[in-house]
Amino acid sequence: MKITAVDFFYLAMPEIRDIGDGSQDALLVRVATEDGLEGWGECEAAPLVSIAAWCCPMSHSACKPVSHSVLGWTIDTPDDIRRLTHEVRRQSFDLLQADHTLSGVDMALWDLLGKHRGEPTWRLLGWEKAYAKQAYASQLFGDTPALTFALAQQVRAEGFTAAKFGWGPFGQDLSADEAHVRAAREGLGDDVRLLVDAGTIWGEDVELAAARLPVLHECNVLWLEEPFVSGALHAYAELGRRMKPPLRTAAGEGSHEPHMARNLIDFGRVGYIQIDAGRIGGLTSAQEIARYAAAKNVTYVNHTFTTPLALSASLQPFAGLKDHALCEYPTQSSALAQTLTTGGPKPTKNGEIRLSDQPGLGVTINLETVRAYVVDTEIRVKGQALYKTPRI
Amino acid sequence: MKITAVDFFYLAMPEIRDIGDGSQDALLVRVATEDGLEGWGECEAAPLVSIAAWCCPMSHSACKPVSHSVLGWTIDTPDDIRRLTHEVRRQSFDLLQADHTLSGVDMALWDLLGKHRGEPTWRLLGWEKAYAKQAYASQLFGDTPALTFALAQQVRAEGFTAAKFGWGPFGQDLSADEAHVRAAREGLGDDVRLLVDAGTIWGEDVELAAARLPVLHECNVLWLEEPFVSGALHAYAELGRRMKPPLRTAAGEGSHEPHMARNLIDFGRVGYIQIDAGRIGGLTSAQEIARYAAAKNVTYVNHTFTTPLALSASLQPFAGLKDHALCEYPTQSSALAQTLTTGGPKPTKNGEIRLSDQPGLGVTINLETVRAYVVDTEIRVKGQALYKTPRI
Repeated sequence: MKITAVDFFYLAMPEIRDIGDGSQDALLVRVATEDGLEGWGECEAAPLVSIAAWCCPMSHSACKPVSHSVLGWTIDTPDDIRRLTHEVRRQSFDLLQADHTLSGVDMALWDLLGKHRGEPTWRLLGWEKAYAKQAYASQLFGDTPALTFALAQQVRAEGFTAAKFGWGPFGQDLSADEAHVRAAREGLGDDVRLLVDAGTIWGEDVELAAARLPVLHECNVLWLEEPFVSGALHAYAELGRRMKPPLRTAAGEGSHEPHMARNLIDFGRVGYIQIDAGRIGGLTSAQEIARYAAAKNVTYVNHTFTTPLALSASLQPFAGLKDHALCEYPTQSSALAQTLTTGGPKPTKNGEIRLSDQPGLGVTINLETVRAYVVDTEIRVKGQALYKTPRI
Repeated sequence: MKITAVDFFYLAMPEIRDIGDGSQDALLVRVATEDGLEGWGECEAAPLVSIAAWCCPMSHSACKPVSHSVLGWTIDTPDDIRRLTHEVRRQSFDLLQADHTLSGVDMALWDLLGKHRGEPTWRLLGWEKAYAKQAYASQLFGDTPALTFALAQQVRAEGFTAAKFGWGPFGQDLSADEAHVRAAREGLGDDVRLLVDAGTIWGEDVELAAARLPVLHECNVLWLEEPFVSGALHAYAELGRRMKPPLRTAAGEGSHEPHMARNLIDFGRVGYIQIDAGRIGGLTSAQEIARYAAAKNVTYVNHTFTTPLALSASLQPFAGLKDHALCEYPTQSSALAQTLTTGGPKPTKNGEIRLSDQPGLGVTINLETVRAYVVDTEIRVKGQALYKTPRI
C-alpha cells in the first residue's frame, strides 16, 4: 500500500488558557493509501510548528521536510513502518521539530496497518496479549491544599486505585508542598497509590528536590516525576540514590527520540520511564523503549495528557508487558478531547484499563468534532500554499 | 532597553540542492529596541519551522511561542540576556523547535548589547582577551579519492594548518573510506592537521566505526567527528576507549540545550565538544558549555557551516579560552553566505582567525543580499497573519 495523502488537522478550544492542561489543542494526522484505507494519529503540542516541519522547503540533504520521506512510501508490514522511522530521522536529521511530526504519522500508520489486517495494533507490535493496566487519574494540584484534598476524594470515589497530582502551585514553597502532598494522601486514603509530578520545577537543583523527600516518604508516594529537566542525568542519578523504596524517580516525557529515554535509564537511573508516543516518534520508537526498559528492570509508563486517540496509541507499545501495570489516564481534559472519539480506552469501576481487540487503535474519530474545532491555517512560501487546512 | 520588535528573514538560494551544504539557506533575526538600536542573529536550518516556533498560538502554559517571552523583555546587562534564556525554556518547554528559534534571538541580543556599550560581544561575555584560533578548513569529501586529494592540496596551498573532510561518500564502504582518508592525508602533507567527520552514518554501531580506526591512526587523524547520533552516549564512550592518542571523538553539534552537550562530556567521554550556537540556544548556552568543557579538560570547538554572521557568533563563547585553539571555518559556502556580510572573521595567511574589537559581533549585514535572497513567506491562522516577511 503506497501512502498517497497525509492530512493534518489543527484543532483548538476557542480559548486557550495559560494553564497546564495539554488537551486544549491537538494536531490530528490522517494517512491515506492508494486503496482508500485511512489511519489516524496525533502529534503532541504546538500544532502549527509540527505542520511546518511536515511541509517546509528543504534546507539541505539532512534537513528535509518530513513529507519528503513519507509520501510515496510503501507500507505492507510492521517493518515497513519501522524502516520509515529510520528514513525520516536520516532525511530530517537537522530539523528539530521533525520528531514530533513523525510521531503522529507513525501512529496513524500503525492504525492503518491494523485496519488493513483486521488486527489490533498491539498485536501487530508483536504482543500476544493486552494486559489490563491500573489507570492512574492524572490531574493538576488544586490551587490550595483544601482543593487538592477535594480532588483526591473525588478520584477515590470514582474508583481509581492510583492518582497523580502535578504542576500548579507545586515546587515553589516547601511547606505549601508538604501541605499539598499530605492533603492528597488524606483525600485518597491509605490504599490508593499516590504519585507526584514536579514538572521540572527544580531545573537540576538536587537539594531543592531532596528537601521534599521526607514528606514524600511520609506519605508513601510511589514516584516523584520530573523533579528536573529531562537532560539532567546526574541530578536524576543523585536524587534516586537518596530515595527510600518504594519511592523512585519518574521521567522521560520530554524524550523526542529513543536515546534520550535510554540515557535516563542508563545514566539517570530512573525507576519509571514515561514515554509520550506523540513526541518520541510514535509507537515504533515508544516500543523500542518499552522493550529496553523491560530488559533493564525499569518500569515503562505512558505519558498522555490529551485525547483518547493519543491514549489508545500510548498504551499499545507496552500492552504485552504484564509487570508494567500502571497507565496514565487524564481526568481533566477539554471538551475537544472528550468529544473527539467514540471508542477509546475507559477505566472500569475498579480503575482498570484494557485495550480492545478492534482493528488498529480501536478509536473512531468524530468528524463533527473535527469540524467544530478545526483551526483554519495556511502557510505560503514564494506565493505557493505549502499547507492549507484540508476539507473534512 | 525594552525589546519592541523582532523580525525574521528567511533567505535561500534560488535552488536548494540535495547536498550536505548547510549554507544554502539562512534564518536571520533582527532585534530592535525602543531606542532604535538593532542586533542581528541567525538560527540554524529549517527557517520556516523556526519562524513558526516564534509566532505559533499557545498550546498550554508550558508551550508558548518564543515571542511570548521575548517581546517586551528589558535588556540592560548580560544577565538580562541570560535570564531570558531561562524564561524562554520555561515558557516554551514543550515546544521542541523553540531552542533553535531562541538561538538566533539570543545571538542578536548579544550583538545589540555590544553595540549599545561599544564593546565586542566576547568582552561582554567576560573574556579579557580574544585569542587567535587555528582555523580548520571545513568541507565535504570529494566524490572520489582523487577529488579528495585535490581538495586537500588546495586547502594546503591556501595556508590552512588544519582541515576537515566529511559526509559525502564517507562511511558506507570500508576500503573506499580508507582510500579517502589516505588521499586527504597525502594531499595535506604531514604537517597539516586532519579531522574526519562521519556525519552520524553508523547510528550507534561501534563495530562499524571501530573498523575505521586503523586507517585513522595510520593517517594521524586528530578527531573522528559524529561516528554516532548525538544521543548514543554508550557508543561514544566505548569507541573512545578504543582510540589511541592523539585520535579522539568529537561531537555535540546536535545539542539543542546545554544538558545534551554536558552528557556527551560526562557520559560519552568525547575529546572535543562541538557546539552550534545557532542550535544550542545562542551564545548564552554555548558559553555555558565552553566553561564546562574547560573545567572537564574537554576541548571546545565551534560548529559552523553557514554565514560569517554565524561564524563570528560561534567564536565569541570560547574566545577567551587560550587552550581551545581550533575553530571551524567553512570554505565551500553558498553565494548567499559569502555576500551576506561585510566584516566577519577571515583567516590570515597562516590560517589563524582572530575576533575583532568592533562592537557586538563585528559584522555588518548587507541589506542588498537580504533583499536578493529573501523568501516571501506568510503564515495565517484563523484568518490572521501571524507572520509575514517584513520589509527590508
